[in-house]
Amino acid sequence: MFTKLHLEEDNPVPLYWQIFQQLRAAILQGDLLPGSRLPPSRQLAQELQAARVTVTQAYDQLQAEGYVVARTGAGTFVTDDLSLITQSTRETRFVPSLSAWGCRVMDAAAEDERPYPRPQIDFGFGRSFPHIFPYDIWRRLLARYLSTDDVMLSRYGSVAGFHPLRQALAEHLSRLRGVHCTPEQIVIVSGAQQALDILARLLLASDDEVLVETPGYAAAFRLFQIHGARVTAVPVDAHGFPVEQIPANSRAKLIFVTPSNQFPSGGTMPLARRLALLHWAGEHDAVIVEDDYDGELRYDEHPHGALQGLDENGRVVYLGTFSKVLFPALRLSYVVLPPALIEPFVRAKALVDRGAPTLTQAAVADFISEGHFERHLRQLRHAYGQRRQKLIAALEQYLPQQVCCSEEAAGLHVMLHLRPHLDESQVVREAAAAGVGVYPGAPYHLHQPAPPSILLGFSGLDETEIEEGIRRLASVYESSQNESVITTSNEFDV
Amino acid sequence: MFTKLHLEEDNPVPLYWQIFQQLRAAILQGDLLPGSRLPPSRQLAQELQAARVTVTQAYDQLQAEGYVVARTGAGTFVTDDLSLITQSTRETRFVPSLSAWGCRVMDAAAEDERPYPRPQIDFGFGRSFPHIFPYDIWRRLLARYLSTDDVMLSRYGSVAGFHPLRQALAEHLSRLRGVHCTPEQIVIVSGAQQALDILARLLLASDDEVLVETPGYAAAFRLFQIHGARVTAVPVDAHGFPVEQIPANSRAKLIFVTPSNQFPSGGTMPLARRLALLHWAGEHDAVIVEDDYDGELRYDEHPHGALQGLDENGRVVYLGTFSKVLFPALRLSYVVLPPALIEPFVRAKALVDRGAPTLTQAAVADFISEGHFERHLRQLRHAYGQRRQKLIAALEQYLPQQVCCSEEAAGLHVMLHLRPHLDESQVVREAAAAGVGVYPGAPYHLHQPAPPSILLGFSGLDETEIEEGIRRLASVYESSQNESVITTSNEFDV
Repeated sequence: MFTKLHLEEDNPVPLYWQIFQQLRAAILQGDLLPGSRLPPSRQLAQELQAARVTVTQAYDQLQAEGYVVARTGAGTFVTDDLSLITQSTRETRFVPSLSAWGCRVMDAAAEDERPYPRPQIDFGFGRSFPHIFPYDIWRRLLARYLSTDDVMLSRYGSVAGFHPLRQALAEHLSRLRGVHCTPEQIVIVSGAQQALDILARLLLASDDEVLVETPGYAAAFRLFQIHGARVTAVPVDAHGFPVEQIPANSRAKLIFVTPSNQFPSGGTMPLARRLALLHWAGEHDAVIVEDDYDGELRYDEHPHGALQGLDENGRVVYLGTFSKVLFPALRLSYVVLPPALIEPFVRAKALVDRGAPTLTQAAVADFISEGHFERHLRQLRHAYGQRRQKLIAALEQYLPQQVCCSEEAAGLHVMLHLRPHLDESQVVREAAAAGVGVYPGAPYHLHQPAPPSILLGFSGLDETEIEEGIRRLASVYESSQNESVITTSNEFDV
Repeated sequence: MFTKLHLEEDNPVPLYWQIFQQLRAAILQGDLLPGSRLPPSRQLAQELQAARVTVTQAYDQLQAEGYVVARTGAGTFVTDDLSLITQSTRETRFVPSLSAWGCRVMDAAAEDERPYPRPQIDFGFGRSFPHIFPYDIWRRLLARYLSTDDVMLSRYGSVAGFHPLRQALAEHLSRLRGVHCTPEQIVIVSGAQQALDILARLLLASDDEVLVETPGYAAAFRLFQIHGARVTAVPVDAHGFPVEQIPANSRAKLIFVTPSNQFPSGGTMPLARRLALLHWAGEHDAVIVEDDYDGELRYDEHPHGALQGLDENGRVVYLGTFSKVLFPALRLSYVVLPPALIEPFVRAKALVDRGAPTLTQAAVADFISEGHFERHLRQLRHAYGQRRQKLIAALEQYLPQQVCCSEEAAGLHVMLHLRPHLDESQVVREAAAAGVGVYPGAPYHLHQPAPPSILLGFSGLDETEIEEGIRRLASVYESSQNESVITTSNEFDV
């Protein structure tokens, strides 16, 4: 009669829906012509060995969606006034033409995927140590807000964030980081990237200049470049961003810095540089974005307060995150805005993303205000401080005088500067072959080629793993070094 | 001796920190001159009646941050090579100069704030009825992932979303909405706004044309306009977007439609229009964005499948959300992308927002795959279907022949078209005075003045409240109508 229908009894899709889908496809593909008559439902049911009601349901659905019309006494007919998709269009695969921004997104190098399978000993950074986090407390706090009596969850939250969380944060940041702010200056975001994206869109016209540190936070370079900004990178030294090295002709509108612990090379900006940076920004009418991504993870006695606390003009935007101190999958960060940027930022955020889940925010607010956060931070500092010491000790034992790294007792990783003639990607490859995951420094440099370095995160490993990992790295390192010496002499021979 | 320090014993800020903060302020403000000597710690401790160790701690912190230097035997001195912020800069309040985008953000009307205090009977829409949601099951699913053994939470999630959730959604959307897709085509986003923002940035150059429905989703109009696009609005009729009314000279690159249940006026696009729209987009090389914001909330027997299921060229982007069917504070939506847009979209998303919290996604994945979602949807359809019927019945009883609204048995609200001479804002104001929250239709129209209408959400009210609310609205409506007749005759008199 017409296209054969194939029904599958054990398919979770109900039989009537299978009939509907196949008839619909036949109509759309022109196998059932406009105006043609469908077989009577009784007859089709017999052919298919299905109940008549099953066929009737399928016909009803076809009729409801306009594929067929039922004429009383005459039967069911394929609708004949449909301007069907022609065969020619059907076979074209649509290829979108992207905007300039879209093209830049596609041209930019994609972020490195972590090696898979995961190495036995993984010095990946930004990982947290799951056993330290007090999941029992966290679960209790979440459960508190999950009762059916609470209508909070059933409404959209505030765009700027859950107010009790912003209050708790204002108090916390003032005490621990010397940040001066009111809760109204704080906006909860999904991550530093979202904050930087909104700031770039608000503040930077195409071709405006941005100053960044190199090595630095590569995702920020990419974001500013894709936005269309000109990115000027100033190479950092052991004391972070060297304000005196800013090119004299710079007209930067935005400066992105990590004053507390330069990312990724380590190092703290001293007071004189901080004041000089504020002065430079004042003279050039620039906004400073301070990324205090691990400001709470200092293992020395007298951590520097935030640059934001020195700002008297309201030109510093402060970024902080819970990803490193609670857990990454939480996806909660925050931005402390100078008064003049609050309204633009909140309006922009409302336009592109209404806000973070209320439940998580409420639980974090309680986690802070009930003292769990500070207790957790003390435990983290203790645990990570010990791991960092172990890592430094292992480096001194197994790789003495071969490498150097920042002395800053902070953060979740160490950047190891390799001897200039070494090939960092070779070290990374050979370490991986030895079951040790270490990460190349090159992607963090805006200028290539960059001096060779590798990054060693220590927050996801215990002390035994750290020692064993560095022991293996050292043997890889020795052999790399020997090979490259040989290579060099070979080159001389040629 | 110098600036007087004021210590507060009962302040939660430790005493040493109070001393540090006050000395720091004195140095920065120039009250303590560069090179000047601080009093010996013993002496200051006596003056302040504090322990000497308290003062020493404060001095140590000042030294660590570079405000003072200790010279052995000579004492502690204010650092003298600081380029301090000058008095003049300190008093200037920074005012950022915004980009063109930033200026458009500020120029656009901000979103309406809900009236405060909340009216006694609130026909706000988009609210969900908290008692229907199975919090016990939800809590159990969340708890499953909150064990310390699970390292999932301690790592960053995938940018595109948690894969089991994307799998569960692909299967769900195929069965319930006739969407054709693989899990790889699905990306989890924070909301429709985020998806539209990324699509606009990827696909639209400044001044490109976008076609929208009017009345329509106002936040989308705003987003496209602020992006710099030219927005052409086509007035809808009872069957949604009238493809045949698209201006002949339109060169739209993007078309934003709500085919299943036109937002906010109601109405479903029939098959012929759907096919015509696909045909138009094919001829003009445009992308269609189908917002199926409440596609699962149909109360009739044979709901239309999604437009996406008819697309053979890969030019339809499908948007869906959990905000209306689970709860708004969840902040989870999803986009089904045609193959050619997957990579651009995911890369763009990675740049601006790494992803939604893994925990919530994992719990929703289980909620779907274990059948709770479909059970919940059945309960929602039953509960909301009844409320909608109650609302329609109350309108017919208390406001017969005065108003009309869409017959579409779907969604969470009804748009009530008022008699043309009525002032909708007056109706809204007077209803509020009678304790009833109803919402003006004007903000949903791109062209002003718009025919008067009000929106009545029914999902947050029970049947008694609905009846009482409409009874009160009717009396307000009658008086408005009388008044406006008087106003009209007065005008004639003048």
